[in-house]
Amino acid sequence: MICWAFSISIQIDAQEKNLAEKLGHSKDSKLLIIHADDIGVAHSVNAASISAFQKKGISSGSIMVPCSWFPEIAAYAKNHPDLDLGIHVTLTSEWKNYKWGGVLSSKEIPSLLNKQGFLYESVEEFSKNAKPAEVELEVRAQIDRAIAFGMKPTHLDSHMGSLFASPELFKIFQKIGKEYNMPVLIPINMIKQMAPQLEAVVEPGQVTIVQLFSLSTSIASEKWNETYNQFIEKITPGLNEILVHLAYDNEEMQAVAIDHPDFGSTWRQNDYNFVISDELKAVLKKGNIHLITWRDIQKVWKAK
Amino acid sequence: MICWAFSISIQIDAQEKNLAEKLGHSKDSKLLIIHADDIGVAHSVNAASISAFQKKGISSGSIMVPCSWFPEIAAYAKNHPDLDLGIHVTLTSEWKNYKWGGVLSSKEIPSLLNKQGFLYESVEEFSKNAKPAEVELEVRAQIDRAIAFGMKPTHLDSHMGSLFASPELFKIFQKIGKEYNMPVLIPINMIKQMAPQLEAVVEPGQVTIVQLFSLSTSIASEKWNETYNQFIEKITPGLNEILVHLAYDNEEMQAVAIDHPDFGSTWRQNDYNFVISDELKAVLKKGNIHLITWRDIQKVWKAK
Repeated sequence: MICWAFSISIQIDAQEKNLAEKLGHSKDSKLLIIHADDIGVAHSVNAASISAFQKKGISSGSIMVPCSWFPEIAAYAKNHPDLDLGIHVTLTSEWKNYKWGGVLSSKEIPSLLNKQGFLYESVEEFSKNAKPAEVELEVRAQIDRAIAFGMKPTHLDSHMGSLFASPELFKIFQKIGKEYNMPVLIPINMIKQMAPQLEAVVEPGQVTIVQLFSLSTSIASEKWNETYNQFIEKITPGLNEILVHLAYDNEEMQAVAIDHPDFGSTWRQNDYNFVISDELKAVLKKGNIHLITWRDIQKVWKAK
Repeated sequence: MICWAFSISIQIDAQEKNLAEKLGHSKDSKLLIIHADDIGVAHSVNAASISAFQKKGISSGSIMVPCSWFPEIAAYAKNHPDLDLGIHVTLTSEWKNYKWGGVLSSKEIPSLLNKQGFLYESVEEFSKNAKPAEVELEVRAQIDRAIAFGMKPTHLDSHMGSLFASPELFKIFQKIGKEYNMPVLIPINMIKQMAPQLEAVVEPGQVTIVQLFSLSTSIASEKWNETYNQFIEKITPGLNEILVHLAYDNEEMQAVAIDHPDFGSTWRQNDYNFVISDELKAVLKKGNIHLITWRDIQKVWKAK
């Protein structure tokens, strides 16, 4: 009998559980990460993102290590070790009047920097110039700086999607994720639509997102919550993620995002208002959607 | 007769005019520069300083090139070439949660950076570690970056006085000023009081400040204007300068200056309120004090 029971147990273990089951949910559960990007870029972003964490409006976020406001969020994270924060690998500096370089010196990453010594403004310029070996060095340096500041980052993603710009960069992204035992953002829906050449290089054993949702840039303020709600109502079983970009619509954020309404100051205030709303909580409850974190995933994910 | 008149003229030229005379004022004129430090460090500082320039509350200012908000003030300066802006040579990064490195790479200026890759927090740490050759490189790089952004800097001064930390650094400061044809801040009153070892290395031909005034850190808000006014009322003939530190007391500035009331957010709002006040204009008029700029000085000053 003992022997038989043992063999049953082996059989169950051998049958790979899906992510929902590994996290203690039923197989067909709808899982959702509500994720705030760009934390660390400005004080306004830090303050709104911390507030959204406290109000349980977001379950996760990721930080931009090369920015001047990184030490503020790193200090907060060190004092709140349960917070789910990953590294928003930052290889571009997109704003007009507010700039940053890399963590590494210009001698080490010359191909990542423009003539002024800042990271390039666009992914196009980045991918045209960046040498993969220098990208790899800089990504590691950003993770290492976060760890040196006492953080325990839970995942890797990529600011403006720069690491999705080529299969070679996408491989580096996955390789470094494995080495640091951090799952990386792999949004299958977006890859199929926008970067199908990456599909063949998604490595076995990676956690993948069924649907990643980010508001389109043409959205009007009055359509904000409705558009998010429509996405949430259609969520299917498996792992889903909503990317939000939070800040208070104040002087600082207006100046950072000058001449750039997409992902700008009003945009970020709209996102903040949405994530802290009772409406969002009601929609999630109605849809029987489980909010999870990258830390949950990290715990059950084994880098191979 | 012609010959005699000519010889008189030679005699007058040979008799060195003082700065006031060179600027078209009478010999015993009281000259004052009202100078905003730290421009470029934060958007709040940029916005308040630009407003104070527009309201003619300050006559001059200087910028911190390594900071993320430098491009904002550089763009403004490029479009307002008459603005009097110098380089606030920045060799420290003093705030708790908001940091910057140098303009040069960590490979070029290792002695100026702490373990985290940022400039040191204090002048003490800076002067204990800094190699003069690296200081010289970084000072030049800061000036060169400002020029590369289309600025025409009018003078050099030193954030937190780090270039007053030793005779060797003070010599570098003067040497680079001469090379770029920029007068440098040499406050005779403060040198006598706080760094008498520098007196012997003030080079002939330098423009010197008779009285440089900066509010003491113990000042109460209600004593603000009164304290400045007392200084102004006692101004004597020659070149004087008041250092102010402007910002709006808003969320950004409060976060920059967290746990640091001296030169903090309220402090800077108090300074802003003072410089734009009618009271200041009245006190200056009553004292027959001429507001001048470093650009005025630069025009008549010949580096030797």
